[in-house]
Amino acid sequence: MAPTISVAVVDAATSGNVGTIARAMKNFGVEQLLLVNPPPVGPGTEAHGFAGRARHDILPNAREVTFEYIVSNYHTIGFTSETNPTDTKGIRHPAKTPAQLAEAMEDVESDTALVFGRERTGLRNEELAQLDEIATIPASSAYPVLNLGQAATIALYEFRRITLAESQLPSDRLERAEEAEIEALYDHIDAFLDRIEYTPERRGKAGVMLRRLLGRAHPTTREVATLHGIMRETEQAVEKRG
Amino acid sequence: MAPTISVAVVDAATSGNVGTIARAMKNFGVEQLLLVNPPPVGPGTEAHGFAGRARHDILPNAREVTFEYIVSNYHTIGFTSETNPTDTKGIRHPAKTPAQLAEAMEDVESDTALVFGRERTGLRNEELAQLDEIATIPASSAYPVLNLGQAATIALYEFRRITLAESQLPSDRLERAEEAEIEALYDHIDAFLDRIEYTPERRGKAGVMLRRLLGRAHPTTREVATLHGIMRETEQAVEKRG
Repeated sequence: MAPTISVAVVDAATSGNVGTIARAMKNFGVEQLLLVNPPPVGPGTEAHGFAGRARHDILPNAREVTFEYIVSNYHTIGFTSETNPTDTKGIRHPAKTPAQLAEAMEDVESDTALVFGRERTGLRNEELAQLDEIATIPASSAYPVLNLGQAATIALYEFRRITLAESQLPSDRLERAEEAEIEALYDHIDAFLDRIEYTPERRGKAGVMLRRLLGRAHPTTREVATLHGIMRETEQAVEKRG
Repeated sequence: MAPTISVAVVDAATSGNVGTIARAMKNFGVEQLLLVNPPPVGPGTEAHGFAGRARHDILPNAREVTFEYIVSNYHTIGFTSETNPTDTKGIRHPAKTPAQLAEAMEDVESDTALVFGRERTGLRNEELAQLDEIATIPASSAYPVLNLGQAATIALYEFRRITLAESQLPSDRLERAEEAEIEALYDHIDAFLDRIEYTPERRGKAGVMLRRLLGRAHPTTREVATLHGIMRETEQAVEKRG
Protein backbone atom coordinates (compact mmCIF):
# COMPACT_ATOMS: atom_id res chain seq x y z
CA MET A 1 0.00 0.00 0.00
CA ALA A 2 1.48 3.36 -1.02
CA PRO A 3 1.14 6.46 1.16
CA THR A 4 -1.60 9.01 0.60
CA ILE A 5 -0.08 12.27 -0.57
CA SER A 6 -1.48 15.72 0.29
CA VAL A 7 -0.07 19.15 -0.47
CA ALA A 8 0.25 21.92 2.12
CA VAL A 9 0.99 25.55 1.25
CA VAL A 10 2.08 27.85 4.07
CA ASP A 11 1.43 31.62 3.88
CA ALA A 12 1.18 31.87 0.09
CA ALA A 13 0.72 35.52 -0.85
CA THR A 14 -0.32 35.19 -4.50
CA SER A 15 -3.53 33.44 -5.36
CA GLY A 16 -2.21 32.44 -8.79
CA ASN A 17 0.43 30.19 -7.26
CA VAL A 18 -2.24 28.28 -5.34
CA GLY A 19 -4.11 27.75 -8.60
CA THR A 20 -0.96 26.53 -10.35
CA ILE A 21 -0.36 24.06 -7.53
CA ALA A 22 -3.99 22.84 -7.66
CA ARG A 23 -3.67 22.21 -11.39
CA ALA A 24 -0.44 20.25 -10.96
CA MET A 25 -2.15 18.20 -8.23
CA LYS A 26 -4.90 17.23 -10.64
CA ASN A 27 -2.38 16.51 -13.40
CA PHE A 28 -0.49 14.15 -11.11
CA GLY A 29 -3.25 12.51 -9.08
CA VAL A 30 -3.20 14.31 -5.71
CA GLU A 31 -6.50 15.45 -4.20
CA GLN A 32 -6.13 17.06 -0.79
CA LEU A 33 -4.88 20.65 -0.61
CA LEU A 34 -4.13 22.07 2.86
CA LEU A 35 -3.74 25.84 3.16
CA VAL A 36 -2.19 27.75 6.05
CA ASN A 37 -3.22 31.43 6.03
CA PRO A 38 -4.14 31.43 2.34
CA PRO A 39 -5.01 34.27 -0.05
CA PRO A 40 -8.54 34.20 -1.54
CA VAL A 41 -8.91 31.23 -3.91
CA GLY A 42 -12.61 31.34 -4.81
CA PRO A 43 -14.31 32.11 -8.14
CA GLY A 44 -12.94 35.26 -9.78
CA THR A 45 -9.48 34.93 -8.23
CA GLU A 46 -6.23 34.13 -10.06
CA ALA A 47 -6.21 30.79 -8.25
CA HIS A 48 -9.44 29.92 -10.00
CA GLY A 49 -8.08 31.11 -13.33
CA PHE A 50 -4.83 29.14 -13.08
CA ALA A 51 -6.30 25.91 -11.71
CA GLY A 52 -7.70 24.49 -14.94
CA ARG A 53 -10.09 21.67 -14.16
CA ALA A 54 -8.87 21.61 -10.56
CA ARG A 55 -11.14 24.63 -10.00
CA HIS A 56 -14.05 22.18 -9.83
CA ASP A 57 -12.76 19.92 -7.05
CA ILE A 58 -9.33 20.54 -5.56
CA LEU A 59 -9.74 24.28 -4.97
CA PRO A 60 -13.27 24.17 -3.45
CA ASN A 61 -12.27 21.14 -1.34
CA ALA A 62 -9.10 22.77 0.00
CA ARG A 63 -8.95 22.84 3.81
CA GLU A 64 -7.68 25.79 5.81
CA VAL A 65 -5.53 24.45 8.66
CA THR A 66 -2.72 25.51 10.98
CA PHE A 67 0.93 24.58 10.57
CA GLU A 68 0.70 22.69 13.86
CA TYR A 69 -2.19 20.64 12.51
CA ILE A 70 -0.07 19.51 9.57
CA VAL A 71 2.87 18.60 11.79
CA SER A 72 0.61 16.61 14.13
CA ASN A 73 -1.37 14.72 11.53
CA TYR A 74 0.96 13.96 8.66
CA HIS A 75 4.33 12.56 7.81
CA THR A 76 5.81 15.79 6.44
CA ILE A 77 8.26 16.58 3.68
CA GLY A 78 9.30 20.23 3.57
CA PHE A 79 10.63 21.79 0.39
CA THR A 80 13.41 24.34 0.42
CA SER A 81 15.92 25.67 -2.07
CA GLU A 82 18.16 26.61 0.85
CA THR A 83 20.93 24.06 0.85
CA ASN A 84 23.23 25.52 3.43
CA PRO A 85 24.36 22.50 5.40
CA THR A 86 23.43 24.18 8.68
CA ASP A 87 20.75 26.57 9.77
CA THR A 88 21.33 29.35 12.25
CA LYS A 89 21.27 26.93 15.18
CA GLY A 90 23.76 24.59 13.54
CA ILE A 91 21.22 21.87 12.81
CA ARG A 92 21.90 20.17 9.54
CA HIS A 93 19.06 19.58 7.09
CA PRO A 94 20.23 16.73 4.88
CA ALA A 95 18.12 17.48 1.84
CA LYS A 96 17.10 14.80 -0.59
CA THR A 97 15.63 15.17 -4.03
CA PRO A 98 11.92 14.58 -4.59
CA ALA A 99 12.84 11.59 -6.75
CA GLN A 100 14.80 9.99 -3.91
CA LEU A 101 12.04 10.62 -1.40
CA ALA A 102 9.31 9.31 -3.67
CA GLU A 103 11.32 6.18 -4.38
CA ALA A 104 11.98 5.54 -0.69
CA MET A 105 8.27 5.91 0.07
CA GLU A 106 6.90 3.53 -2.51
CA ASP A 107 6.50 0.76 0.07
CA VAL A 108 5.60 2.95 3.04
CA GLU A 109 2.03 3.48 4.10
CA SER A 110 1.51 6.81 5.82
CA ASP A 111 -0.42 9.99 5.18
CA THR A 112 2.20 12.34 3.85
CA ALA A 113 2.06 16.08 3.26
CA LEU A 114 4.40 17.83 0.83
CA VAL A 115 4.87 21.22 2.49
CA PHE A 116 5.70 24.39 0.54
CA GLY A 117 6.46 27.83 1.97
CA ARG A 118 6.22 31.49 1.08
CA GLU A 119 6.96 32.90 -2.38
CA ARG A 120 10.07 34.86 -1.43
CA THR A 121 11.34 33.33 1.75
CA GLY A 122 10.09 29.74 1.73
CA LEU A 123 9.73 27.80 4.96
CA ARG A 124 11.39 29.27 8.04
CA ASN A 125 14.10 27.37 9.88
CA GLU A 126 11.86 26.87 12.89
CA GLU A 127 9.23 25.37 10.57
CA LEU A 128 11.73 23.13 8.77
CA ALA A 129 12.90 21.87 12.15
CA GLN A 130 9.40 20.49 12.85
CA LEU A 131 9.15 18.57 9.57
CA ASP A 132 10.19 14.95 9.11
CA GLU A 133 12.14 15.15 5.87
CA ILE A 134 13.58 17.93 3.77
CA ALA A 135 13.54 17.98 -0.02
CA THR A 136 15.36 20.21 -2.46
CA ILE A 137 14.85 20.23 -6.20
CA PRO A 138 18.20 19.98 -7.96
CA ALA A 139 18.72 23.10 -10.08
CA SER A 140 21.43 25.40 -11.37
CA SER A 141 23.92 26.36 -8.69
CA ALA A 142 23.84 29.82 -10.30
CA TYR A 143 20.07 30.19 -9.73
CA PRO A 144 18.57 27.35 -7.71
CA VAL A 145 15.56 29.33 -6.43
CA LEU A 146 12.41 28.09 -8.13
CA ASN A 147 9.10 29.86 -8.19
CA LEU A 148 6.66 28.33 -5.67
CA GLY A 149 4.24 27.00 -8.28
CA GLN A 150 7.02 25.58 -10.43
CA ALA A 151 8.70 23.87 -7.47
CA ALA A 152 5.42 22.22 -6.46
CA THR A 153 4.80 21.15 -10.07
CA ILE A 154 8.14 19.34 -10.25
CA ALA A 155 7.63 17.76 -6.82
CA LEU A 156 4.20 16.45 -7.81
CA TYR A 157 5.60 15.21 -11.11
CA GLU A 158 8.22 13.17 -9.25
CA PHE A 159 5.69 11.79 -6.75
CA ARG A 160 3.47 10.56 -9.60
CA ARG A 161 5.04 7.13 -9.19
CA ILE A 162 3.10 6.92 -5.93
CA THR A 163 0.01 8.94 -6.75
CA LEU A 164 -0.84 7.85 -10.29
CA ALA A 165 -2.16 4.37 -10.85
CA GLU A 166 -1.82 4.98 -14.55
CA SER A 167 -0.73 7.84 -16.73
CA GLN A 168 -1.95 8.59 -20.21
CA LEU A 169 1.22 6.84 -21.39
CA PRO A 170 0.89 3.11 -20.75
CA SER A 171 4.33 2.38 -19.33
CA ASP A 172 4.49 -1.27 -20.41
CA ARG A 173 4.28 -0.15 -24.02
CA LEU A 174 7.46 1.81 -23.53
CA GLU A 175 9.64 -1.15 -22.59
CA ARG A 176 10.94 -2.70 -25.75
CA ALA A 177 11.93 -6.35 -25.46
CA GLU A 178 15.63 -7.26 -25.66
CA GLU A 179 17.11 -7.36 -29.15
CA ALA A 180 17.78 -11.11 -28.81
CA GLU A 181 14.14 -11.77 -27.96
CA ILE A 182 13.05 -9.79 -30.99
CA GLU A 183 15.51 -11.63 -33.24
CA ALA A 184 14.19 -14.97 -31.95
CA LEU A 185 10.68 -13.78 -32.76
CA TYR A 186 11.75 -12.95 -36.31
CA ASP A 187 13.27 -16.43 -36.64
CA HIS A 188 10.04 -17.99 -35.45
CA ILE A 189 8.08 -15.89 -37.93
CA ASP A 190 10.34 -17.08 -40.76
CA ALA A 191 9.92 -20.72 -39.71
CA PHE A 192 6.22 -20.17 -39.31
CA LEU A 193 5.84 -18.72 -42.79
CA ASP A 194 7.70 -21.76 -44.14
CA ARG A 195 5.60 -24.16 -42.07
CA ILE A 196 2.32 -22.79 -43.33
CA GLU A 197 3.78 -22.85 -46.85
CA TYR A 198 3.13 -19.19 -47.48
CA THR A 199 2.97 -18.32 -51.21
CA PRO A 200 6.64 -18.66 -52.30
CA GLU A 201 6.72 -15.59 -54.56
CA ARG A 202 5.44 -13.36 -51.75
CA ARG A 203 7.37 -15.15 -48.98
CA GLY A 204 10.42 -12.86 -48.94
CA LYS A 205 8.49 -9.61 -48.90
CA ALA A 206 6.13 -10.84 -46.19
CA GLY A 207 9.01 -11.69 -43.86
CA VAL A 208 10.60 -8.26 -44.34
CA MET A 209 7.30 -6.48 -43.87
CA LEU A 210 6.60 -8.26 -40.60
CA ARG A 211 10.07 -7.37 -39.31
CA ARG A 212 9.61 -3.71 -40.19
CA LEU A 213 6.17 -3.58 -38.67
CA LEU A 214 7.17 -5.24 -35.43
CA GLY A 215 10.42 -3.28 -35.20
CA ARG A 216 8.52 -0.03 -35.47
CA ALA A 217 6.06 -1.09 -32.81
CA HIS A 218 8.82 -1.75 -30.24
CA PRO A 219 7.18 -4.91 -28.89
CA THR A 220 7.41 -5.68 -25.19
CA THR A 221 8.56 -9.01 -23.78
CA ARG A 222 4.97 -9.91 -23.07
CA GLU A 223 3.87 -9.07 -26.57
CA VAL A 224 6.72 -11.15 -28.00
CA ALA A 225 5.62 -14.09 -25.83
CA THR A 226 2.04 -13.75 -26.98
CA LEU A 227 3.10 -13.70 -30.62
CA HIS A 228 5.17 -16.88 -30.08
CA GLY A 229 2.13 -18.46 -28.43
CA ILE A 230 -0.18 -17.60 -31.28
CA MET A 231 2.22 -19.03 -33.82
CA ARG A 232 2.82 -22.17 -31.75
CA GLU A 233 -0.87 -22.93 -31.42
CA THR A 234 -1.38 -22.25 -35.08
CA GLU A 235 1.46 -24.66 -35.90
CA GLN A 236 -0.15 -27.33 -33.73
CA ALA A 237 -3.42 -26.83 -35.50
CA VAL A 238 -1.64 -27.11 -38.85
CA GLU A 239 0.11 -30.27 -37.60
CA LYS A 240 -3.18 -31.99 -36.80
CA ARG A 241 -4.67 -31.00 -40.09
CA GLY A 242 -1.60 -32.14 -42.04
CA MET B 1 29.93 16.49 -26.01
CA ALA B 2 26.29 16.97 -25.07
CA PRO B 3 23.85 18.83 -27.31
CA THR B 4 23.08 22.51 -26.83
CA ILE B 5 19.48 22.92 -25.72
CA SER B 6 17.28 25.87 -26.67
CA VAL B 7 13.61 26.46 -25.98
CA ALA B 8 11.10 27.56 -28.64
CA VAL B 9 7.61 28.84 -27.83
CA VAL B 10 5.12 29.03 -30.69
CA ASP B 11 2.24 31.54 -30.60
CA ALA B 12 2.11 31.98 -26.83
CA ALA B 13 -0.80 34.29 -25.97
CA THR B 14 0.00 35.10 -22.34
CA SER B 15 3.13 36.97 -21.47
CA GLY B 16 3.25 35.39 -18.02
CA ASN B 17 3.84 31.93 -19.46
CA VAL B 18 6.87 33.18 -21.37
CA GLY B 19 8.24 34.58 -18.11
CA THR B 20 7.63 31.29 -16.30
CA ILE B 21 9.47 29.44 -19.05
CA ALA B 22 12.38 31.91 -18.94
CA ARG B 23 12.71 31.40 -15.19
CA ALA B 24 12.72 27.61 -15.54
CA MET B 25 15.39 27.95 -18.24
CA LYS B 26 17.61 29.87 -15.84
CA ASN B 27 16.86 27.39 -13.04
CA PHE B 28 17.95 24.49 -15.23
CA GLY B 29 20.80 25.98 -17.26
CA VAL B 30 19.28 26.77 -20.67
CA GLU B 31 20.05 30.16 -22.25
CA GLN B 32 18.54 30.59 -25.71
CA LEU B 33 14.83 31.37 -25.95
CA LEU B 34 13.26 31.37 -29.44
CA LEU B 35 9.84 32.99 -29.81
CA VAL B 36 7.44 32.59 -32.72
CA ASN B 37 4.85 35.37 -32.82
CA PRO B 38 5.27 36.27 -29.14
CA PRO B 39 3.26 38.54 -26.84
CA PRO B 40 5.13 41.54 -25.36
CA VAL B 41 7.83 40.38 -22.93
CA GLY B 42 9.64 43.62 -22.08
CA PRO B 43 9.82 45.56 -18.81
CA GLY B 44 6.41 46.05 -17.22
CA THR B 45 4.91 42.88 -18.73
CA GLU B 46 3.89 39.75 -16.84
CA ALA B 47 6.74 37.94 -18.56
CA HIS B 48 9.15 40.31 -16.85
CA GLY B 49 7.37 39.83 -13.54
CA PHE B 50 7.38 36.03 -13.68
CA ALA B 51 10.91 35.57 -15.01
CA GLY B 52 12.80 36.12 -11.75
CA ARG B 53 16.46 36.68 -12.49
CA ALA B 54 15.93 35.52 -16.07
CA ARG B 55 14.54 39.01 -16.73
CA HIS B 56 18.15 40.23 -16.88
CA ASP B 57 19.44 37.89 -19.59
CA ILE B 58 17.16 35.23 -21.05
CA LEU B 59 14.19 37.53 -21.74
CA PRO B 60 16.12 40.45 -23.30
CA ASN B 61 18.23 37.97 -25.32
CA ALA B 62 15.21 36.07 -26.66
CA ARG B 63 15.12 35.88 -30.46
CA GLU B 64 11.98 36.27 -32.51
CA VAL B 65 12.02 33.67 -35.30
CA THR B 66 9.70 31.77 -37.62
CA PHE B 67 8.59 28.17 -37.13
CA GLU B 68 10.37 27.30 -40.38
CA TYR B 69 13.63 28.74 -39.01
CA ILE B 70 13.44 26.42 -36.02
CA VAL B 71 12.72 23.38 -38.18
CA SER B 72 15.62 24.21 -40.52
CA ASN B 73 18.23 25.00 -37.89
CA TYR B 74 17.63 22.68 -34.97
CA HIS B 75 17.06 19.10 -34.06
CA THR B 76 13.53 19.53 -32.75
CA ILE B 77 11.53 17.90 -29.96
CA GLY B 78 7.87 18.91 -29.94
CA PHE B 79 5.80 18.65 -26.76
CA THR B 80 2.19 17.58 -26.81
CA SER B 81 -0.27 16.18 -24.30
CA GLU B 82 -2.19 14.64 -27.20
CA THR B 83 -1.45 10.95 -27.03
CA ASN B 84 -3.91 9.61 -29.51
CA PRO B 85 -1.92 7.09 -31.50
CA THR B 86 -3.00 8.66 -34.77
CA ASP B 87 -3.75 12.15 -35.91
CA THR B 88 -6.51 12.98 -38.35
CA LYS B 89 -4.43 11.77 -41.27
CA GLY B 90 -3.68 8.44 -39.61
CA ILE B 91 -0.03 9.27 -38.93
CA ARG B 92 1.18 7.89 -35.65
CA HIS B 93 3.20 10.11 -33.27
CA PRO B 94 5.06 7.68 -31.02
CA ALA B 95 5.59 9.96 -28.05
CA LYS B 96 8.39 9.48 -25.58
CA THR B 97 8.80 11.01 -22.14
CA PRO B 98 11.23 13.92 -21.64
CA ALA B 99 13.28 11.63 -19.39
CA GLN B 100 13.65 9.05 -22.16
CA LEU B 101 14.58 11.68 -24.72
CA ALA B 102 17.08 13.40 -22.46
CA GLU B 103 18.73 10.08 -21.63
CA ALA B 104 18.97 9.12 -25.31
CA MET B 105 20.60 12.46 -26.10
CA GLU B 106 23.31 12.47 -23.48
CA ASP B 107 25.93 11.35 -25.97
CA VAL B 108 24.57 13.17 -29.02
CA GLU B 109 25.99 16.48 -30.15
CA SER B 110 23.42 18.58 -31.95
CA ASP B 111 21.69 21.89 -31.42
CA THR B 112 18.31 20.89 -30.12
CA ALA B 113 15.17 22.97 -29.59
CA LEU B 114 12.43 21.92 -27.18
CA VAL B 115 9.31 23.24 -28.93
CA PHE B 116 6.14 24.22 -27.05
CA GLY B 117 2.82 25.30 -28.53
CA ARG B 118 -0.17 27.46 -27.74
CA GLU B 119 -1.81 27.63 -24.30
CA ARG B 120 -5.08 25.96 -25.24
CA THR B 121 -4.40 24.00 -28.37
CA GLY B 122 -0.68 23.21 -28.29
CA LEU B 123 1.21 22.43 -31.48
CA ARG B 124 -0.88 21.69 -34.57
CA ASN B 125 -0.63 18.35 -36.32
CA GLU B 126 0.99 19.94 -39.37
CA GLU B 127 3.61 21.47 -37.03
CA LEU B 128 4.20 18.21 -35.16
CA ALA B 129 4.71 16.47 -38.49
CA GLN B 130 7.70 18.74 -39.20
CA LEU B 131 9.45 18.05 -35.89
CA ASP B 132 11.99 15.29 -35.33
CA GLU B 133 10.76 13.79 -32.08
CA ILE B 134 7.61 14.04 -30.02
CA ALA B 135 7.55 14.18 -26.23
CA THR B 136 4.68 13.83 -23.82
CA ILE B 137 4.88 14.38 -20.09
CA PRO B 138 3.35 11.42 -18.27
CA ALA B 139 0.38 12.64 -16.23
CA SER B 140 -3.00 11.54 -14.94
CA SER B 141 -5.06 9.82 -17.61
CA ALA B 142 -8.01 11.71 -16.09
CA TYR B 143 -6.38 15.11 -16.72
CA PRO B 144 -3.13 14.90 -18.70
CA VAL B 145 -3.26 18.47 -20.05
CA LEU B 146 -0.60 20.56 -18.37
CA ASN B 147 -0.40 24.33 -18.40
CA LEU B 148 2.20 25.58 -20.92
CA GLY B 149 4.56 27.03 -18.31
CA GLN B 150 4.31 23.96 -16.10
CA ALA B 151 4.94 21.57 -19.00
CA ALA B 152 8.05 23.50 -19.99
CA THR B 153 9.24 23.57 -16.38
CA ILE B 154 9.06 19.77 -16.13
CA ALA B 155 10.72 19.30 -19.52
CA LEU B 156 13.61 21.60 -18.54
CA TYR B 157 13.90 19.82 -15.18
CA GLU B 158 14.29 16.48 -16.98
CA PHE B 159 16.83 17.87 -19.46
CA ARG B 160 18.99 19.22 -16.62
CA ARG B 161 21.10 16.08 -16.92
CA ILE B 162 22.33 17.56 -20.20
CA THR B 163 22.22 21.26 -19.44
CA LEU B 164 23.52 21.50 -15.88
CA ALA B 165 27.17 20.88 -15.19
CA GLU B 166 26.42 21.02 -11.49
CA SER B 167 23.38 21.63 -9.34
CA GLN B 168 23.23 23.35 -5.98
CA LEU B 169 23.06 19.91 -4.34
CA PRO B 170 26.51 18.50 -3.79
CA SER B 171 25.80 14.95 -4.80
CA ASP B 172 27.87 13.41 -2.01
CA ARG B 173 25.40 14.77 0.52
CA LEU B 174 22.67 12.73 -1.08
CA GLU B 175 24.49 9.45 -1.22
CA ARG B 176 23.62 6.63 1.10
CA ALA B 177 26.67 5.42 2.95
CA GLU B 178 28.34 2.24 1.70
CA GLU B 179 26.74 -0.98 2.87
CA ALA B 180 29.89 -1.87 4.86
CA GLU B 181 29.71 1.44 6.71
CA ILE B 182 26.10 0.81 7.57
CA GLU B 183 26.84 -2.74 8.73
CA ALA B 184 29.62 -1.40 10.96
CA LEU B 185 27.10 1.05 12.39
CA TYR B 186 24.69 -1.82 13.16
CA ASP B 187 27.52 -3.71 14.87
CA HIS B 188 28.29 -0.67 16.96
CA ILE B 189 24.61 -0.32 17.87
CA ASP B 190 24.52 -3.97 18.98
CA ALA B 191 27.65 -3.51 21.06
CA PHE B 192 26.22 -0.29 22.40
CA LEU B 193 22.96 -1.92 23.48
CA ASP B 194 24.98 -4.59 25.25
CA ARG B 195 27.26 -2.02 26.84
CA ILE B 196 24.37 -0.04 28.26
CA GLU B 197 22.81 -3.34 29.40
CA TYR B 198 19.57 -2.71 27.59
CA THR B 199 16.66 -4.77 29.01
CA PRO B 200 17.52 -8.32 27.88
CA GLU B 201 13.96 -9.32 26.99
CA ARG B 202 13.61 -6.30 24.70
CA ARG B 203 17.21 -6.38 23.45
CA GLY B 204 16.59 -8.41 20.28
CA LYS B 205 13.61 -6.42 19.10
CA ALA B 206 15.32 -3.10 19.70
CA GLY B 207 18.30 -4.06 17.55
CA VAL B 208 16.08 -5.10 14.70
CA MET B 209 13.95 -2.00 15.02
CA LEU B 210 16.98 0.28 14.84
CA ARG B 211 18.26 -1.52 11.78
CA ARG B 212 14.93 -1.14 10.04
CA LEU B 213 14.61 2.47 10.98
CA LEU B 214 18.09 3.43 9.86
CA GLY B 215 17.84 1.34 6.73
CA ARG B 216 14.71 3.16 5.73
CA ALA B 217 16.37 6.53 6.36
CA HIS B 218 19.28 5.80 3.98
CA PRO B 219 21.91 7.43 6.21
CA THR B 220 24.81 9.29 4.64
CA THR B 221 28.46 8.72 5.54
CA ARG B 222 28.40 11.86 7.61
CA GLU B 223 25.28 10.82 9.49
CA VAL B 224 26.77 7.38 10.18
CA ALA B 225 29.85 9.09 11.58
CA THR B 226 27.68 11.29 13.79
CA LEU B 227 25.78 8.28 15.15
CA HIS B 228 29.08 6.53 15.94
CA GLY B 229 30.18 9.69 17.70
CA ILE B 230 27.05 9.91 19.80
CA MET B 231 27.32 6.29 20.87
CA ARG B 232 31.03 6.62 21.59
CA GLU B 233 30.52 9.62 23.80
CA THR B 234 27.65 7.93 25.57
CA GLU B 235 29.84 4.88 26.16
CA GLN B 236 32.53 7.09 27.63
CA ALA B 237 29.97 8.67 29.92
CA VAL B 238 28.78 5.23 31.01
CA GLU B 239 32.39 4.19 31.54
CA LYS B 240 33.04 7.05 33.94
CA ARG B 241 29.86 6.39 35.85
CA GLY B 242 30.55 2.65 36.11
